[in-house]
Amino acid sequence: MRVLSNELKDHINSEVHLEGWLHKKRLLGGLTFINLRDRKGIVQAVIKDKAEVDKLKGMQIGTVMEIDGQVVEEPRAPGGAELHDVRIKVIVPVSYEMPIEIDKPLSHKPDNLDTLFEHRAIGLRNINEAKVFLIRSELLRLIRQFLYNNDFVEIQTPKLVGNAAEGGAEVFKLDYFGKPASLAQSPQLYKQVMVGVFERVFEIGPAFRAEPSATTRHVSEVTMLDIEMAFIKSHDEVLNMVQDMLYFTLTNLWANHSEELRQLKAPELVIKPSFPRYSMKQIHEMYQEANKVDMSAEIDLTPDEERWICEYAKEHDGCEAVFATDLPKPKMKFYHKAKDDKSAQSADLLFRGLELATVPVRENGYEDLIRQMKEAGIDPDDESFRFYLQAFKHGLPPHGGCGFGIDRLVEKTLGLGNIKEAILFPRDINRLSP
Amino acid sequence: MRVLSNELKDHINSEVHLEGWLHKKRLLGGLTFINLRDRKGIVQAVIKDKAEVDKLKGMQIGTVMEIDGQVVEEPRAPGGAELHDVRIKVIVPVSYEMPIEIDKPLSHKPDNLDTLFEHRAIGLRNINEAKVFLIRSELLRLIRQFLYNNDFVEIQTPKLVGNAAEGGAEVFKLDYFGKPASLAQSPQLYKQVMVGVFERVFEIGPAFRAEPSATTRHVSEVTMLDIEMAFIKSHDEVLNMVQDMLYFTLTNLWANHSEELRQLKAPELVIKPSFPRYSMKQIHEMYQEANKVDMSAEIDLTPDEERWICEYAKEHDGCEAVFATDLPKPKMKFYHKAKDDKSAQSADLLFRGLELATVPVRENGYEDLIRQMKEAGIDPDDESFRFYLQAFKHGLPPHGGCGFGIDRLVEKTLGLGNIKEAILFPRDINRLSP
Repeated sequence: MRVLSNELKDHINSEVHLEGWLHKKRLLGGLTFINLRDRKGIVQAVIKDKAEVDKLKGMQIGTVMEIDGQVVEEPRAPGGAELHDVRIKVIVPVSYEMPIEIDKPLSHKPDNLDTLFEHRAIGLRNINEAKVFLIRSELLRLIRQFLYNNDFVEIQTPKLVGNAAEGGAEVFKLDYFGKPASLAQSPQLYKQVMVGVFERVFEIGPAFRAEPSATTRHVSEVTMLDIEMAFIKSHDEVLNMVQDMLYFTLTNLWANHSEELRQLKAPELVIKPSFPRYSMKQIHEMYQEANKVDMSAEIDLTPDEERWICEYAKEHDGCEAVFATDLPKPKMKFYHKAKDDKSAQSADLLFRGLELATVPVRENGYEDLIRQMKEAGIDPDDESFRFYLQAFKHGLPPHGGCGFGIDRLVEKTLGLGNIKEAILFPRDINRLSP
Repeated sequence: MRVLSNELKDHINSEVHLEGWLHKKRLLGGLTFINLRDRKGIVQAVIKDKAEVDKLKGMQIGTVMEIDGQVVEEPRAPGGAELHDVRIKVIVPVSYEMPIEIDKPLSHKPDNLDTLFEHRAIGLRNINEAKVFLIRSELLRLIRQFLYNNDFVEIQTPKLVGNAAEGGAEVFKLDYFGKPASLAQSPQLYKQVMVGVFERVFEIGPAFRAEPSATTRHVSEVTMLDIEMAFIKSHDEVLNMVQDMLYFTLTNLWANHSEELRQLKAPELVIKPSFPRYSMKQIHEMYQEANKVDMSAEIDLTPDEERWICEYAKEHDGCEAVFATDLPKPKMKFYHKAKDDKSAQSADLLFRGLELATVPVRENGYEDLIRQMKEAGIDPDDESFRFYLQAFKHGLPPHGGCGFGIDRLVEKTLGLGNIKEAILFPRDINRLSP
């Protein structure tokens, strides 16, 4: 019966059977120490018997093995115990030397990211690299838990579409059995149609943007959480749902995984159940006053302002998550609802200086929507929009939602420097493999 | 405070506030009856007051409204109660007549499927059409629950890849910033690499196949569940995990949703915790004997055999899910592990006559894998395989898993006739919209 590394301390003075990878090997005062890695962590084993040591001859890091031995309390070992009287059985011998050292922290310096990704397939075997993606899996589990509890239905919408022009980003084009097609840059149109069915829907899936920029913020394939909810009475109702979801997710993550988060040097969480809300205009004014610069020409928030307002809110409101509300009209998409002449019923959710989501109310009037499409230079008669407009023509209630960047959330939760570090196998203008 | 339709029976003799869509309107003996639809179902309301009836003048199905009224017990109404003394507030007036009748069952006859999909955006507002996708969401929730409980980590792997030649299906090609790229037909290579990190991984996401066939089984965009588990001792261990997952999912679905399943006329579930296992050779022989036909020339199971063995197992073993084991060598992919000269360590999971998944042990030896790639005509030096082979070069334990068709599972669970009916917005050779 296999025992996992994190269960070792429950078997002190017992004989156990472990399986995993050779993670480290060293000689110390005539003894051979090895680290065995499994999906739960590391076990240290001390080997005296020459016959057993000989089995390791030529065996490189990565060798797959079973080891049996006696569990001995050892406060200096990982998990507070180590294995003695070890018998080794090599399952998959590895004779090639690792091109990188996976028992030491891997460099995430900007200059070293290419090397990191080139060796991703084995670099992720580093315990801390793997933890990033355990945290990511857990964030997604918590988000789903919140949304199920709030009566949202999970949907899957097509990624192959005729026209993906709704969002404003560059799209990837392809040939679809002789017809021109695009890769969906968001499930925007489909999820809005689906509130006419389920009122509350969400999707977690890939979205594709042919981003020609090579920055720390841009990748060409992202994981988006798309949420949409109907029968809302106000913009605040949508903001509250997104706020409650993020609060639930992050506080539960910290409650259940504080040890791993600290090992990853994730910044301590500073959050409140109710996120501060400042209008874009207010933020421009506050920033202008605090920094003695003229912001009157700016429509959108600058990256500096995004960072500053999150710092400000962390200090003054005790919360690193902030809503920048009343986004200016020029930022408005055709499917957003206007508030007045100057602004839209839309807010940006900022967290630790980065926009995680735009959270608007949608225009739900059929004729108003057609007018806004035309104003945006989009042809409402395009075949790709027929199903979308059909849903409005036959009644869609007031609704709102958001497109929420999961990769950005992972990045900011863990304090990584680049969105690509939050993605297993990132894609950008220069990278299509691994 | 909004009350939902399924809560009405808890408010008998009280005043309630409802919100939803006008779903049906009829005059009966001087009274106006309306059905209001919300995300939980239908409420019947009886309107006497002429001023209220007048508000409905010209209002078509789909009109979004709030209604207030008194809840009265009424065994003949949906949910056992109806609304009297109704006051109506129209929120979104709809003046266009519905092109289809959504309060009656929509036709799913093969000839009518195109009409069904053309009107999908509003056709899904039919209560039973919507239920298909509630069941789908619930199936996915249960699958995730099982996998989390069994220590699987959820991953997201890239859909934009340099070379997607691993699976044998036709792939979609596109231009990726001047480089040739493909849409992933499966996460096969990535998930295998990831067992080197987490031992047990899964992904639920889209997969793309440029299927030139227009059948009831083929679509060009599917939702796949990919599972992979390491440190296995036998093929049976993998089969057991997939079997336990399906058993858990389906029995819980029936335990929690039997009413909806019966409304959808889903076939009653006949399943056992342990699925019968027959080798392909046995199935050929059993079928040959039962049907007096010569199957000696067949390598793969014919669709008729797939149906027959499921019927046979349902009758003789009390289980509609069957494993067809020892798949013949010619069906083997380069990443499968051979059993002997004739067969692979691979099985097909059949359910109600359809293959849901192929469940093999993977070849985990670095040199053996390279040999099998070459035998399959795949160049191991192709840049797209570098990361994949790197993981094997540095030690991957024995592992196995499956690619499991979620759309097929939904189709067969509900007894639909065509995979497309299990997909919100299906894609095939003739269909790129809606």
